Parts: sequence; structure tokens; C-alpha cells
Amino acid sequence: MTQAGLPALVVTHLPDVRYLSGFTGSSAALAITRRAARLFTDGRYTAQAAEEVKSAKTQIVSSSPSVNAVQWLAAQPGVRFTSFDPAWTSVAELGRWRAALPTHLRRTFLSALAAPLVEPLRMVKDEDELAIMIEAALVGCSLFEHILTVMHPGMEEIEIAAELEHRARLMGAEGMSFDTIVASGPRSALPHGHATRARLPVRGFLTLDFGVILNGYCSDMTRTVHFGAPKAIERNAYQSVLEAQEAGVAAVGAGVKCADVDEAARSVLRKAGLADAFSHSTGHGVGLEIHESPRVGAGQPNRLLPGMVITIEPGIYLPGKFGIRIEDMVAVTRNGGQVLTPAPKALIEL
Amino acid sequence: MTQAGLPALVVTHLPDVRYLSGFTGSSAALAITRRAARLFTDGRYTAQAAEEVKSAKTQIVSSSPSVNAVQWLAAQPGVRFTSFDPAWTSVAELGRWRAALPTHLRRTFLSALAAPLVEPLRMVKDEDELAIMIEAALVGCSLFEHILTVMHPGMEEIEIAAELEHRARLMGAEGMSFDTIVASGPRSALPHGHATRARLPVRGFLTLDFGVILNGYCSDMTRTVHFGAPKAIERNAYQSVLEAQEAGVAAVGAGVKCADVDEAARSVLRKAGLADAFSHSTGHGVGLEIHESPRVGAGQPNRLLPGMVITIEPGIYLPGKFGIRIEDMVAVTRNGGQVLTPAPKALIEL
Repeated sequence: MTQAGLPALVVTHLPDVRYLSGFTGSSAALAITRRAARLFTDGRYTAQAAEEVKSAKTQIVSSSPSVNAVQWLAAQPGVRFTSFDPAWTSVAELGRWRAALPTHLRRTFLSALAAPLVEPLRMVKDEDELAIMIEAALVGCSLFEHILTVMHPGMEEIEIAAELEHRARLMGAEGMSFDTIVASGPRSALPHGHATRARLPVRGFLTLDFGVILNGYCSDMTRTVHFGAPKAIERNAYQSVLEAQEAGVAAVGAGVKCADVDEAARSVLRKAGLADAFSHSTGHGVGLEIHESPRVGAGQPNRLLPGMVITIEPGIYLPGKFGIRIEDMVAVTRNGGQVLTPAPKALIEL
Repeated sequence: MTQAGLPALVVTHLPDVRYLSGFTGSSAALAITRRAARLFTDGRYTAQAAEEVKSAKTQIVSSSPSVNAVQWLAAQPGVRFTSFDPAWTSVAELGRWRAALPTHLRRTFLSALAAPLVEPLRMVKDEDELAIMIEAALVGCSLFEHILTVMHPGMEEIEIAAELEHRARLMGAEGMSFDTIVASGPRSALPHGHATRARLPVRGFLTLDFGVILNGYCSDMTRTVHFGAPKAIERNAYQSVLEAQEAGVAAVGAGVKCADVDEAARSVLRKAGLADAFSHSTGHGVGLEIHESPRVGAGQPNRLLPGMVITIEPGIYLPGKFGIRIEDMVAVTRNGGQVLTPAPKALIEL
């Protein structure tokens, strides 16, 4: 905050609150000045906040935590204005904050950050965070290896999801990072095909995209396998996606532009005549949230920094026919990228 | 919209988008005028939107869906301003919308709703929605009855969560409504004690609070059971919470103020000397979101309407000792309330 020239900050985005204070509850606001920090939450979290929050005083309130945080900041000596993150503050909430301030402060006290302050800190993981994320990613790989021994044609997609999620829990996961994607046969052409009662085909692709939450941190990986013998066109398409994915991974390194990583993957698919079938970005940052900065897409000017963890996940989708996506988590290092999800990527035929 | 005197509306809160259009993807905005509606989403959802959205045209965009929605509305003949919900629009997003408008429209075109428009529609469930919610609630009850046959002292809390969630999946749930709460022994004093590696006690309370998502709709229920023989103080405390919960359920009915339902439950605990140990509201609306309107808490002036589905979930929390919470889902009817979660509530000793 001293670097950014800011006297005070109110933080309401819960992953940011957790990152800065350790508090994992579902209702909180953090008020920070250069001298002090205070966490506001409600009576449901009295015991939990006392256990989790060491770096800030905690105050239990019976009305809105964020309104209390803003009022507390307004009462701090020498604090003439407070910044907030406009990406995580609703128009309605800003109105409530203003209304709760003394009249003479309403126009001047609240100032939107010109650039995010906590997000750039969260993008770069420290050693402790990386250790947790490596473990979370390896749990994902272990789940994939397990499910390969379980899956067979005729099973329902949701049985696959149920088995993955059950085993994830038993391995210590707090939950899944997002709704598990199990997309079989023609459903593999849906990039976000959540598990349904559809049955795994005797012949066709199956895309699995899933992640676990371990100590708050998300893992994320995708593998596409084939039941029965693939046709030449399917095998070739798979090979193109794999080459695109490997080109994306190979492009990762400190100082590299996100747009260039995207282009490394995208150009492979373009050359294969599959540019139109690749309808999303190459990847995204991952951490306390499943999608966080940086975005790894066309035109993204951000440069990768050591300690960032991103996904590389090109895919192609041919509606009514099939889809293929392959995704790794990659930690950016000084010299390149470290793949955190070392599960096999060569086409598996089941 | 005609009733509210509004020419146009941009909807970005995804449960609202789903409610109005049927679209279940993770990125979308809905633009509505009195004559037409258009859903904006990205290329990942081309096939899914075509399948799900019948009441609006769909437009696939490669930049922000909400910016595209606002620009489309600005180009509609006769639309001089567009409303948005300030509770679900960030300060940053409003800035992007303004910046994307022609200069002469920037100051006048976007207008915050004075009161929510979609939320009141969603509060009152129609017959189809109620049928799904009844089914979701009964899946919850069936899970509770099953887990009673599985639980025993020494098991880890997460094994209980894993078993509940696995079985929920096999019963067709898309997922859980929220992180499953399994809080055993002294952890039962944490109102939001998510399942950990803590082991179920030989003697002590266990609180289970969980829900499933079925066709997008959430269920929510809590039961507290006891391992071994409870002490008199524990049995009495349980009885007080049960009486409070039943008083809350009995108070439900069309036309009743939410505050009065809260007071019906709270006054029982006050008389038992447990007012301070009941640190949260009595309940909340439930539907496409696990927490939605109305809020059933002290001072809430809203009146219940037939078709609303709310939770009644008083609890007491004695830090370091134990906690107890009992929760039902209740549908408001013309003559009272229909409990959707008919699992036993008398104290179960395991």
C-alpha cells in the first residue's frame, strides 16, 4: 500500500480476504490501513475467525461486514480516503457504503482502484502455495489413473463423476474446484459438458475435466480418451490437439507474453485447419480460485512471472461429432514451465 | 417490464439468466426489451445455448457478453434507457458498459433498478419448480437416512461427506448445493464447520448440513444426532432447539412477516436462556441459489407468499462445548407451510 501510495483499503472479495488474512468463512470484509488491519464478520464465525485470523484483529458485527469495515476506516486518524476494488464491489454495495458515511465524507472517501492490488499478489505463488498446488495437481493425476481402471462402455457419465469425487474426498479434498465435466461421445463437443445420465459409448471420445480443492487451492486438468479404435480422422484430430497443447506448454516461461503462449498453441491448430473449432482461450491462472489472473488468450499483453500457475488447455469441438481437449497445470519457472499434472497424454484407447 | 414502466433490461446474474432463458452456462448476459430478448454468450456454449434457449435469440460473441448486450439494447429503436440490477453489477462492469456506449448515451442510458425485478419473480416457485424442489428435498432425506446406517465413532468427517456426496451423484444430483457441513463433537459449535479429518466421537453431537442440486434447484437440510448417551444438559438443549424449530415451522404461512417467523423460533430459545447462543437468522429462501430472497431474520418486514420455499434452521453454539442445529425446507402454502424434508427430528442416539 505504501508502494501504491494508498492510505487504506477495504477488501470484500472472499478469496482476497482469505489470501490476506487466512479467514475462510463465507461472509467477511477486511479493512487495512498502513498501521492496522481488522476483519469484520458475523456471529456464525466467532470461533472460526479466532482460530484462523492471526494478522488482523477480528470484530463480530450483526450488520453488513463491509459497511462496518468502511465506517471503521473512516474513523481511523489520518485516513483521508479508502480504496476499493471496483471489479468486486457492486453498484448497490458502493451505495450502501456511501450512505453509511458522515455527509462530508460521502463524495471523497471512497476511491476505486485504478488497477487491482491483491490480484497481482495472488498471481505469483510462494513456496508454500506451490507445495499445496503440486499436491492438489497430483491428487488429480491419481484420480485420473484410478478412473481409467473403472470406466467402461455403458456406465453413466455421472457414475464416473461420482467415483472421481468420492475418491477425491477420501484423499482429503475439501471439494471439487468446479462441476466435474464428463462428456462422452457426441457430448464431448460441448466444452463444458457436465456429467449427465448419458452412457459411455462403445466407440467414441470421452473428455474428463475436473479438479480438487486442497487447503483452499484448486487443481484443474483435462484428459480425453477413446473407447474402441478411433477412426483416422479422430486419431489425427487428437494428434493435432496434443501437438497444440505441447506447443503451448513449451512456450511457457518467465517474461513470455500470455498472447504468445496462446498463439503457440493456436497456430498448430490453425495449420491443421482446426482454427474455428478451437473456440476458447488457451488457458487461465489458477490458485484460490479456479479462474484467476492471468488470462492466457489471444491479445493478452501480460507477461508471465516465475511462480505463476496457469493452465494450458487447447481443445477442438465439432458439434454433433466429437470434441477433444487436453489440459495441464503449469508452474512458470525462471527457465520455462514445470508441468504439475504429469498424467499420460498419448491417446489412450479403452 | 410493462408493469414496472421499463423499456429495457440487461440481466447478468447467472441464476437470473437461467431463470428467464433456460441457459445454464457460466458466461452470459440477457438483453430484454418489451418486444424481444437476446442471449449473449461465448463460443464455448454455441451448441449448449442452441439446445437450452428457446425464448430468446442467441448471439455468440468473442468479447464481453454483457457489453454486447448493452450495445445491442442501445441500438434498439425506441429504447431510450436500460435498467440493470445494481446488486449484481460491479462498479467496474458499469464503467465498461458506459465506455462502450456512444458518447451522447453515456450519462443517460444506464439506470439502476430501484428495486430488484427478477428476484421477486424467483422467490415464488411455480408448480414445475416446486415439483423439482420436493424431489431434491426428498433426495436429501434419503441421504440422511442412509448415512445413519453408515456412521460410527472413529470415522472421519470427510468420509461421511464423501459417502453423502457419492450417493447424491448416483441419485442424479448435479452436485451439492454448498460445501457439506459435517461438524462432530466440539466442532458442532462451528455453525459452518465443513468436513475435516476429525473423527466422529464416541460421545458427542454431530451436525450434518447439506443439500443437493437437482435440475438446477438446491435442497438444504440439517440434522444433529448424538453418539452415545447425551447428558441432561445436552438433551435439554436439543429439546429447546427442536421446539424453536417447530415453532418457526408452525409460524409459516401466506401473509406472515419474515420477522415474525424468526421471532417465533427465537423467542423459544430466549425463554430457554439460549438467545446469545443463536447467532444467525432463522432461515432464508432457497431455489436456483442456496441463499436467495426472502431472508427470514429479525426485523425483516417482507411477507411470505404462497409458493415461496424457505428454510427454518435455528441453532445454538456453545464454543468449546457443542452445537445443535435443525433445519427443514418449508414451502409456503395458502394455509401454512408444507415441510419438504420429513426426516425424523426427535433426538437420534447412535
